[in-house]
Formats: sequence, C-alpha cells, structure tokens
Amino acid sequence: MAYACLVRSVVTFTCPDGPGIVHSVTGAVVLLDGNILESQQYSSPDTGRFFMRFEVEHDTARDSLHTALKDVARRYHGEVTTDEAGRLVRTMILGSKAPHCVSALLSHARVGSLPITVPLVLANHDDLAPLAQFYGVPFESRPIDGDDAKAAFEQRVREVISQQDIELVVLARYMRIVSPELCDELAGRLINIHHSFLPGFKGADPYAQAHARGVKLIGATAHFVTADLDEGPIIAQRVTPVTHARSVQQMREIGRDIEAVTLTSAVKLWAEHRILLDGVRTVIFD
Amino acid sequence: MAYACLVRSVVTFTCPDGPGIVHSVTGAVVLLDGNILESQQYSSPDTGRFFMRFEVEHDTARDSLHTALKDVARRYHGEVTTDEAGRLVRTMILGSKAPHCVSALLSHARVGSLPITVPLVLANHDDLAPLAQFYGVPFESRPIDGDDAKAAFEQRVREVISQQDIELVVLARYMRIVSPELCDELAGRLINIHHSFLPGFKGADPYAQAHARGVKLIGATAHFVTADLDEGPIIAQRVTPVTHARSVQQMREIGRDIEAVTLTSAVKLWAEHRILLDGVRTVIFD
Amino acid sequence: MAYACLVRSVVTFTCPDGPGIVHSVTGAVVLLDGNILESQQYSSPDTGRFFMRFEVEHDTARDSLHTALKDVARRYHGEVTTDEAGRLVRTMILGSKAPHCVSALLSHARVGSLPITVPLVLANHDDLAPLAQFYGVPFESRPIDGDDAKAAFEQRVREVISQQDIELVVLARYMRIVSPELCDELAGRLINIHHSFLPGFKGADPYAQAHARGVKLIGATAHFVTADLDEGPIIAQRVTPVTHARSVQQMREIGRDIEAVTLTSAVKLWAEHRILLDGVRTVIFD
Amino acid sequence: MAYACLVRSVVTFTCPDGPGIVHSVTGAVVLLDGNILESQQYSSPDTGRFFMRFEVEHDTARDSLHTALKDVARRYHGEVTTDEAGRLVRTMILGSKAPHCVSALLSHARVGSLPITVPLVLANHDDLAPLAQFYGVPFESRPIDGDDAKAAFEQRVREVISQQDIELVVLARYMRIVSPELCDELAGRLINIHHSFLPGFKGADPYAQAHARGVKLIGATAHFVTADLDEGPIIAQRVTPVTHARSVQQMREIGRDIEAVTLTSAVKLWAEHRILLDGVRTVIFD
Repeated sequence: MAYACLVRSVVTFTCPDGPGIVHSVTGAVVLLDGNILESQQYSSPDTGRFFMRFEVEHDTARDSLHTALKDVARRYHGEVTTDEAGRLVRTMILGSKAPHCVSALLSHARVGSLPITVPLVLANHDDLAPLAQFYGVPFESRPIDGDDAKAAFEQRVREVISQQDIELVVLARYMRIVSPELCDELAGRLINIHHSFLPGFKGADPYAQAHARGVKLIGATAHFVTADLDEGPIIAQRVTPVTHARSVQQMREIGRDIEAVTLTSAVKLWAEHRILLDGVRTVIFD
Repeated sequence: MAYACLVRSVVTFTCPDGPGIVHSVTGAVVLLDGNILESQQYSSPDTGRFFMRFEVEHDTARDSLHTALKDVARRYHGEVTTDEAGRLVRTMILGSKAPHCVSALLSHARVGSLPITVPLVLANHDDLAPLAQFYGVPFESRPIDGDDAKAAFEQRVREVISQQDIELVVLARYMRIVSPELCDELAGRLINIHHSFLPGFKGADPYAQAHARGVKLIGATAHFVTADLDEGPIIAQRVTPVTHARSVQQMREIGRDIEAVTLTSAVKLWAEHRILLDGVRTVIFD
Repeated sequence: MAYACLVRSVVTFTCPDGPGIVHSVTGAVVLLDGNILESQQYSSPDTGRFFMRFEVEHDTARDSLHTALKDVARRYHGEVTTDEAGRLVRTMILGSKAPHCVSALLSHARVGSLPITVPLVLANHDDLAPLAQFYGVPFESRPIDGDDAKAAFEQRVREVISQQDIELVVLARYMRIVSPELCDELAGRLINIHHSFLPGFKGADPYAQAHARGVKLIGATAHFVTADLDEGPIIAQRVTPVTHARSVQQMREIGRDIEAVTLTSAVKLWAEHRILLDGVRTVIFD
Repeated sequence: MAYACLVRSVVTFTCPDGPGIVHSVTGAVVLLDGNILESQQYSSPDTGRFFMRFEVEHDTARDSLHTALKDVARRYHGEVTTDEAGRLVRTMILGSKAPHCVSALLSHARVGSLPITVPLVLANHDDLAPLAQFYGVPFESRPIDGDDAKAAFEQRVREVISQQDIELVVLARYMRIVSPELCDELAGRLINIHHSFLPGFKGADPYAQAHARGVKLIGATAHFVTADLDEGPIIAQRVTPVTHARSVQQMREIGRDIEAVTLTSAVKLWAEHRILLDGVRTVIFD
C-alpha cells in the first residue's frame, strides 16, 4: 500500500472563472499522489467566479499540498484554503438567557456530530452557567447595561478570540446588536440565527408579528452578520407549518426548535468548510 | 332506517364568544334529527370571536336547518351559512398568459378533486384559449391597454358575476392590480396567488429578488385580495428548498409548480367552506 | 366577574356514534356554567365511533364536571376523562446508552414546553447518569444480561409505576423488546420511537437497510407499543430528505435528530390528552 | 471571442475509483479548449466506483469531445456518455386510465420545463386520447385482456422503441406488470411511479393499506423498473402529511398530486443525465 501515513484534507479554491482551472487544481493533487474523495464545484453566472471544495487523501504533509495549490491559485488570481478533515473548529458562543441554541450546539459537539470545540461561552447573564458546566465548557458572564459595558463586552470578545485562537463566533440568541466595527473584523466568521425567515419579519418579536399577520409557516434563518442588520448572506433556512390555533407563545416554542436545528446545521456547514461567499450570496457545498 | 331522503349540509357559524354556543347550535341540529359528522371550532383570543364549521346529515329540507340555525345566530349576534356538501362552487378564473395555475384548477375540477364549476375563464390575452377549450370551459379575452380598458375589463367581470351567479373569483396569475372598488365588492371571495411567500418579497419579479438575496427556500402564498396590495388575509403557504445553483429561470419553474399547488389548495378550502375570517387572519378548518 | 376561582380542564369523550352526543355533552357543561375554549371531534367511518376533546373553563370543582359528564357517557355507552389543563404528567423514561431522545425530553420538560415530570430515568447502562443529574432527575441503572435480569428489570418498572404513580412510560431508545405481558399492562400508555418510518424498515439497524436500499428520505415513527412488535398504533411520523452521498453513519446522525423531535412531539400529544385510540389507528387532536 | 460556434454538452463518466481520474478527464477537456460550467462527482465507498457529471462549453464538434473522453475512459476501464445539453429526450409514455401523471408530463414538456419529446402515448384504454390530442401528441390504445394481448402490447412497445428511436419509457400509472424480459431489455431506461413510498406498502391499493394502518405521512416513489417488482433503484421520493380524518378517497387524491410531481421530477433528472447507477442505488447529481 502506497499510503504510509494517510492524511485527509479539505480544500476550498475560488478564483475568477475560466477554462482549465479544475485540470490545474487536480494536476497539483495528482503530482502529490493524492486521491480526491469528494468534490463539488460551481461557476457563478452572477459574479463570474469559480468555487470548488474537495476532500483529498494524501501521504504528504499538508504543507506540501498547500504550497502546491497556492501556486495554482496564484496563477488564476484565486484563493485557496486547506485544513485537516474533521478537525474541531475553535468556536466561541455568545449567549444571553435562552438555552435552546446553546444547548443544541454543545450537545451535538459532545456526541461528535458537530466538529467544533468551545473554549468559552460568553454571555451577558448568568442563566446559562449550569448548562455550560454540564458540558464541561468554560463560561463567563458580563452584564451589558450601557454603551460602555457593551464596548467592554466586545473588547472581551476580541481578547478571547486572540488568546484562544477562536476561528468562529456564533450568536446563539445573543439578543444584542453587534457593533459595525466588530462585524467588519469578524466578516465571514460571525454567524447569527434569526428567529423568523428572512427577509420576512425583521426587528423585535417576529413571532408576534407572524401571529398578527396570520402566517401559515414560520421558520428560522442562519446568516452571516454584517453591519447591515439582518441582511448578511443567508446560510440556511427552515420552516414548519402552523395553524390559526397556535398562540404567540406556542409559535415561540415551535420557533425555538427550528432555530436550534437551523443554527446547528449552519455551524456544521461552516466547520466543514462548506460555505463559500459569492458576493452577498452563499455557495453551500452540502 | 330513519332517513328517508338523506341530505348532507355544511354549516359555518361565527359570533362573539361566550358560554353555551355549541350547546345551542347542536340543540337546533338535534331537534331536526340531524347527525353531526365532522365538526371543528375555534375561539380567537385576539378578537374574542367564536368560529364553528360542521357537516351534518339530515332528512329535512336545508331551509328548515337554515331557519333553525338562523334563530340561534340571532340570539348570539352571529352569522350562519348553510350549503349542500360537495356542491360545485361557481368560480370565475381571471388569467393572463401563464397557463400553470389555470391548468391546475381546471384539471382538478375535471377529475373531481376540486368542487368548482367554471362558467368562464376571462383573460387579457388569447394564450389560454386552447387550454380552456380542452377542458370544455368558456373562454373570453379582452386586451387591457389603458385605464379605460381596465375599467371596461372590470365592468365585464361584474357583468359575468351577476349573469352567471359567480360566487368566487380566482386570480390565476392575472398579473394586474385589481381596483380598490372591485376589491371591496368582492371582499372575502377574491383569491390571489402571490409568487413568493408573503410578507417576503413584494412587487415585481420576486424570484429575481429571491435569487439576488440568495434565499434557501422559495414559496407561494394564496391570499384574499384587499385594496392593500399583497396584505390580504393569508389562506395557504408552501415552500420548497433551493440551492445556490438554481438560476432565476429555474427558480421561476420551481415557483410555477408551487404556485399551482398552493392556489389549488386555497380554492378547495374556500369551496368547502373551510375558511373563516378572524379580522385580518384566516381560520382554516382543514 | 362570575368566575370566583377559575379552573381549566381538558376533557376527552368517546362513544358509539349517533345523533345528539355533542348537544348532550355541551349541555352538561352549560349547566355548570362552563365555557368551552377549544374543541375537536371526529366520527370514524371505519369503527363507527365518536371522539371528542375539549378544554373548558369553569368555577366548579372538577369532580362536579366529571360526574356530570360521566352521566352523559353512561347514557351513550361511552367513556370520559377529565384532567387539569397543563398538569405535568408523571412520566418514567426507559433508556439505554443513546442520549439524544432522553436529552430532548428532559430539556423540553425543563423549559416548560413539554408538560411532564420525570420521577425516574431507568436504564440498563450507566451512561445517562450525568444527563439525568444535570436536569435534577433521579436515575437508576440495572444491567440486563439474561432472561432473569430482564424479568427483574420489568418487575422494577412495575414497582416504580406503582410507587410513583407513573402515568406514561416512554421508551427513549431503550433498545430492548418489552415482554408481551408488560405491553398488555401498559396498553395505550407505553410509547416507543422507531428509528425509521414504519412500515418501512423493521428490525435491526434500519439506517443500514435504508442506505443499502438507496432511499431518498429517512424518518422516524413514534407509536404505542403492543405485543406485536413495531405494529402498534402510529402517533407521529416525520421524514427528512437524504442523498446518495450520505453514509450510514451520517444517516444515523440525521436520524437521531428526527427521532428526538418525533418522540418529543408524541409525548407532548399524550400529555395533553390529544391522542385517542380508534381501533389500531390513532385520532390526533392537534 | 474565441468560441466561433459554441456548443454545450453534458458528460457522464464512471469507472473504478482511483487517483488522477478528474485530472485526466479535465485534461481532455482543456486540450479541446472546453470550459467546464457545472460539475459533480462522487466516489462510492460501497462499490468502489467513481461517478462524474459535468456540463462543458466547447467550439469543437461533440464527436471530438466524445473521442477524447472515450480514450480516458478506456484507460480507467470506465464508461462515458456525451450529449447535447437541453436536447429533448425521445420518451414514450405508457398509460392506462388515470390522467394525472400523463397530464403532468405533457404539460411540463409543453411549457419547456421538462426536456422530453413524446412520439407516442400508448395505453390499454381510450380514456387518455383527448388529453394527448390537446397536447398534440400521438396516442394509441390497445386493450390488454389476456396473456396473449399483453405479449402483443409489449411487442408493440418494442416496435415503437425501434421505429421511433425511443430512449426512455415512462410508466405513468400504467397499472400492469411489465414482463421480466422487457424489464431486462429496458434496464436503466424504464421508470415507474409507485403510489406510496417504498419500501412501505407494496402491491394493490396502498392507500387503503396506509389508511388502515393509520399512517401520518403518505408519499410516492419514482424508481427504475426491474424484474424484481417494486425493488428497482429509487430515483425520487416525496411525502406529505395526512391526518386521521383523511378518508381512503382523500388519500388517493393527495396521492395523485404527489405521484405526478415525483414522477415528473424523476423523468427530468433522467432527461438531464443526472441519474447514474451505483449497483442497486442511484447517484443523483441534482
């Protein structure tokens, strides 16, 4: 058997579209005796960009693979990322009082169906402390009771990101607006769950709005956060039917379940490098 | 057997909520030796109104049933409707060029899964003539090329309603804004299909908007038409998942299917007296 | 205000179908000055039985309501149950090693969206002990390593039911066949989650079977347990799409989520008295 | 612009899995100055086979492309198909009395959302003649009232296939068992719609079976036909929720809609070369 010490890597590759890209990319892989196991690609007619994600088995160091692909990327004015397949992504969760999304993330991480590790749950209330403790995850709470406190909270977010090598920040019903500066700093790695499906009902208490409007479906949207509130690129959306007989309270309960499922699926897509950005749209290689 | 000549009726009953209503309503049915076969009720906490729909077998004339229930309704300051179960509702379809919704309505009517009869398909183009002909349904087209023409078109709608005893008017991708006056005249019996789910994308070419926004779900909403465009009470909503790889054109195709299914289901609910109005919301007794 | 001390009760009523039942039932409620808030009924053409569920507000003792309805039930050779609306149902959970269903039940009970209280989680392994501890729920494990041990385990189930006034027993991935005797003793109050949709794949490792067969949907079924394995009355079913690219392992993960959601919804229906038995079918008043 | 006369082709490529395949395939495309627009691939861990489908723009004749790829296929002991993208696939429809599936296929073909052309609808009854006539499609009926008649009918199927260059045969509620011989002759190009989801209820009147069992979901399965009845590779499956209140007749109506949608989607996948066979499973490049 040729593979003395087999490594499995995940690669993403994007560049302006044109002929020969796949051949060049796979050529680099072939030269390293790599074997492509799963591959998806997409050419965007809207932006003229090419997107590719693949998983590859190889017996060389990942560095060699990265260097080889970097050369190809340079030739096509593109970008490449390589990572160890299945590596646990260092993820900070920002929460508030509601446990359902935090609980879903931590329990999926625990059973191994969500490849993240959580160095810290940071919240503006104490309520989630026992939940974090159950899952053996560090927890910290800092009240946000004014603009200064909010700035201090966000400063703490930056510190943790830096000290703990955080790659992804998840707003798990954090309920606060993130400052435009922090949104920009975390562009493409700050995910939020919106309690209703965008661009449906925006702003406060969407379930009350949905109930008042008499909708027959409610849902949730997971999206990247940008300074333009609730308008960041959409990652995942789910809906579930409701009837006239559902109260606002019941719609919130139904909403909690669908929020937890939708956010978890979006974080999983991110952690597996399945989300690529095509302007304001996402390419999802599911 | 007690029922010499068995009749099956559908009854709807609404009034301000309070104790004893169901007992009084069913009391009237019992006195006529009726047998309730299917019954649904709902008390709206929002408006304080009570809603009931039931199907009843009886061997008396429907007139007697109606008179008896009318007495109960008077006592509770409510309203009652009675109808023959399964009767074909006289429905006018307004169309334009797109065949998918008209085709769905006529084919379901033909096979007996949609209890309507269609005295006329009225359109502002000729395109749907052969489709109507295939189903043996009268067809008439009148161009709408100005404000006068539109007023004349709507006058023709009123004439047909009057001459043909039309009960329900369905906008099957009619693509024109109905005048506020006609909306008011047809309040509660004018149904539209909106090509996207409300209150999502409003106005022109929602699939292009949905595509640009990168949504992961598209859908359709069937609703009553009111003078307030696209804000009438919602009857039915459906969605289907889409990926980044779907072009605007493909999203339109997917949309066509979901529009046809959603509109057909809403018309069926209406024809079976399963839609009651609770302010701006619908109560659906499905 | 007339209601000095308002009580809200849930009532179910079933009997052979015939005229006048609803009038008689509601008459008893009217005599007690009760106000019916939500009501559903169904007449089964298959078995000729009548089913009704309603919620009622009254200022009398529940005993008076029950006695009055019992009289009506006697007249119609039927059965009646009355209960306090929202009362927490005493539920024993039987588990094994897999945490997902137990976790879903306990967390929904904790946040108040599932009206059960759990006096004991009883399992044949220790794995779930910390989970129960987190939710402050008593836990007990007893290995089952032979026929005698199984009989002893089931004897312990009977003891707990008796000592703790258990009303409902839930098999949350318990992975053992319940003896026909215990099935009979717990008829109508023993719920199982089947990992695949019935009557699809029965027996061992259904996800492997589903994968081998190349299905495009997988799902879960919550059902009452009867001595006839996997053939008890179906309570709830859900499915989710899968593609050829899903491995057996991934299908199991997807399956875990859908099992947890489906079982939780079935237990909620039971705890709210929304499930009535119509022969081998269930009537669900959702 | 380099492309004097631009051609768009669809290519499928399968072979035993191994390193370098994609590089070789795309190399052949690059040599012809082709530009890959959409590409999907899959390596089956079950069978060890590699599957690829892509669409390519090129200005050479399709023959040159096919020849070049054929060389690559030979090297990898694989198989290749090339076709003009969007070409209408010559499809024969076999029907009986029920119109819903035939109607869905013909109307989607008419509006251009299903790339097939239908040289003949062949049925064992006259009922569908006007439907075919409306869509301008030749129709022929031959009664099947015995074994000899069935053999003659199938002989006619063979004749039409040969004379009309039929590529795909669709059983649109044909309601007859196809002989094992004809199944074998048409392996991989004979599609059926099964009224219920496999491997759920097999055999006669599945809706009656589903109703008797009290299922909460009904659905449909489109699959390739093999001599092993209802066990051919699954192409597409859909379900829809039903309640206890649905009669067998209503379940059949709901089923008709879902059958038509599911069959149409399967035929579209086939016509676009999106279905590849991986043993008894299908790989769907959607």
